[in-house]
Amino acid sequence: MTAHLLTIGDEILIGQIVDTNSAWMSQALNEHGIRVCGKSSVGDVQREIVAGIEHAAVGVDVVIMTGGLGPTKDDITKKTLADLFGCVLVFHPETQARIEAYFTKIGRPFPQALLEQATLPDCATILTNRVGTAPGMWFEWDGKVYISLPGVPWEMESLMEHEVIPRLKARFKASPIVHRTILTAGEGESNIAKRIEALEDSLPGNIKLAYLPALGQVRLRLTGTWLGPLTPDAEQQLASLVDEKKGELVSLLPDLIYGYEDETLQQVVGKILIAQGKQFGTAESCTGGYVAHLITTVPGSSNYFPGSVVTYSYDMKTKLLGVKPETLQRYGAVSEETVREMALGALDTLGVDISLSISGIAGPDGGTPGKPVGTVWMAVADRRRSVTQKQIFGRDRIKNIQLTGTYALNLVRKFLLGEV
Amino acid sequence: MTAHLLTIGDEILIGQIVDTNSAWMSQALNEHGIRVCGKSSVGDVQREIVAGIEHAAVGVDVVIMTGGLGPTKDDITKKTLADLFGCVLVFHPETQARIEAYFTKIGRPFPQALLEQATLPDCATILTNRVGTAPGMWFEWDGKVYISLPGVPWEMESLMEHEVIPRLKARFKASPIVHRTILTAGEGESNIAKRIEALEDSLPGNIKLAYLPALGQVRLRLTGTWLGPLTPDAEQQLASLVDEKKGELVSLLPDLIYGYEDETLQQVVGKILIAQGKQFGTAESCTGGYVAHLITTVPGSSNYFPGSVVTYSYDMKTKLLGVKPETLQRYGAVSEETVREMALGALDTLGVDISLSISGIAGPDGGTPGKPVGTVWMAVADRRRSVTQKQIFGRDRIKNIQLTGTYALNLVRKFLLGEV
Repeated sequence: MTAHLLTIGDEILIGQIVDTNSAWMSQALNEHGIRVCGKSSVGDVQREIVAGIEHAAVGVDVVIMTGGLGPTKDDITKKTLADLFGCVLVFHPETQARIEAYFTKIGRPFPQALLEQATLPDCATILTNRVGTAPGMWFEWDGKVYISLPGVPWEMESLMEHEVIPRLKARFKASPIVHRTILTAGEGESNIAKRIEALEDSLPGNIKLAYLPALGQVRLRLTGTWLGPLTPDAEQQLASLVDEKKGELVSLLPDLIYGYEDETLQQVVGKILIAQGKQFGTAESCTGGYVAHLITTVPGSSNYFPGSVVTYSYDMKTKLLGVKPETLQRYGAVSEETVREMALGALDTLGVDISLSISGIAGPDGGTPGKPVGTVWMAVADRRRSVTQKQIFGRDRIKNIQLTGTYALNLVRKFLLGEV
Repeated sequence: MTAHLLTIGDEILIGQIVDTNSAWMSQALNEHGIRVCGKSSVGDVQREIVAGIEHAAVGVDVVIMTGGLGPTKDDITKKTLADLFGCVLVFHPETQARIEAYFTKIGRPFPQALLEQATLPDCATILTNRVGTAPGMWFEWDGKVYISLPGVPWEMESLMEHEVIPRLKARFKASPIVHRTILTAGEGESNIAKRIEALEDSLPGNIKLAYLPALGQVRLRLTGTWLGPLTPDAEQQLASLVDEKKGELVSLLPDLIYGYEDETLQQVVGKILIAQGKQFGTAESCTGGYVAHLITTVPGSSNYFPGSVVTYSYDMKTKLLGVKPETLQRYGAVSEETVREMALGALDTLGVDISLSISGIAGPDGGTPGKPVGTVWMAVADRRRSVTQKQIFGRDRIKNIQLTGTYALNLVRKFLLGEV
């Protein structure tokens, strides 16, 4: 089964919002064996929407549209769909009742403007929105399925999960697709490619390898597609083959791999801390709380993370972490000596077993000839030992903060595992 | 002048990466009067790329492609473009010299695999990549321009800025477009729409209003398009008209507006702190350093932000902020009493003039009947007074953290301005 995703709305075309929906949808569809062959975006103009839908439908079974269903006046999708599929907008009492109940539940007054959302094309199957007001719509036309969903991410996700995917699986028979993702940190795409070249060249035709670089990380994704007849054990056979290739890849990159599939470095670090029964804390300067934020995005992190200090100024480094003024004076805030004292101080201040400290020049200004913008020192310490690492990143402040987050968490991981 | 953006690569279609490039490109093009009429994505398959380019070119002057130029084997764009435009790949010594110089500059060994990137279609104008290896390419065909750029965000951005936009402006004559954006926090789309309905209905045909909701915020964007003949003062006349409408909008929503254009709440708060000569710090529980991170994404924030503490545990709240154990015992960590003591404690611990404290239940677990998941208390204090605010958000941990960030920064802003 194949699909095309179409986003509707000027806000996408003028670049005011980043389209995160279609990445989420692609992943969800792929997991269920529905291949996304294309994506496109059109503005809030009737003829562009019609042209967009007609183009989207070429060569695929399903077109899934998002956006253009809001209560405000820039949204014309519903009317366009009714015209296109030759039906009319009618009042839908069940949807009104559901929207009213939704507002009762969240304890807010019902905005009358939303009544408009209960007016729907009479040829559509209405898909219930469990977490918002605008319902989804399902049209069948000339053997293809056309689905319209609201653009609000959590509403789209809920509708995909509860309505769209179950209905698509019932309507079509999907061919198995198997994905396996290997997560690496600390090495670039070209150098990884060189190390796995022979394996890559020997992959069978139905298995593809993709390199997905992010800041300081590269994800390697194997995708296997079942090309034979649909037998009961097709998915299992395909999975065995992809797992075999994954095993070969893993054996070539043991020093770079921190996890698999959708894990994050902060989840991996959290799991190790739980397994080792250790409490962890951070003392951050140039990252300004970013690493603490990453750690605490993980549910249950309060079990191993009592807290953190952000010490941006010299004073705070001395007062909260006991860094000696002479050290700051002599070596500067961005130095091996300072981060080591910060990490040791954090063990006491936060009462933890293991600590991470970071001090650097995030930029865009503040560099010196000996310490250019992008210079970052980090240290990890417990009561027995400490390790330090220096990196020189680039000139972009946000990128430096994010890169430091990746390198620092990876250093903590390796410290916990005794690899540094 | 009109453009279509085409992203190439399986990583977009399988949803492994979010396409942030095309939002950035749309904004940059729009600012220079180039309207993006559509966006689409295709996979790393030759015939899909060709079909994608042909579709993209319909009705526009320029097609800008990103992605598919990496050194790894899943990238076939260059070969496809050479075939499509009827030319051959030839070795380009200047590009080789530039790539080698780039590696010398960053002090890393030159990966031989990258030599491949110096082989380029002989019908393309080569666009110099100042911050990476793969160059951009510019093709002219049948009166239209086709541009291919690498998918790495900072490389694409640098090429757009230094090569693509200046060349497009020289090649075509762009009709003026004027955007004005008003940033609001703390109210939903429907209620804002109701308050500005009369104004919205009276907008002239060449001015459009778009609602761009994000977590806890709605941006209102006015877009004016010049429809008349291209006179020397066209842009200025259009800007006056859009500014007039913007002024009317502003007068309808004085209590909700925190800024304009691309400002962030953290930038606005930073500017007020600088203007008032005040030092600011945070004491965070459920947000785990996220607000400190937001504050410190702003260059120069060290001038008004000496530091922060993240007190996840009861112990840390007591030890670092002096919250009384009785208060925690009696009212719980998520209470008005606790956040007030946290904020007052932070004034001393961090030695600041104004402090923000936050304590809540981010979820997904940990709620009680009286304090459901999503309950968040925050306080802002100086030496004279303190204010507190309670919000009940939803069940999603990350969304709760981000929503809290918006509400908390807005509370700090209003406190500084004497509006609360």
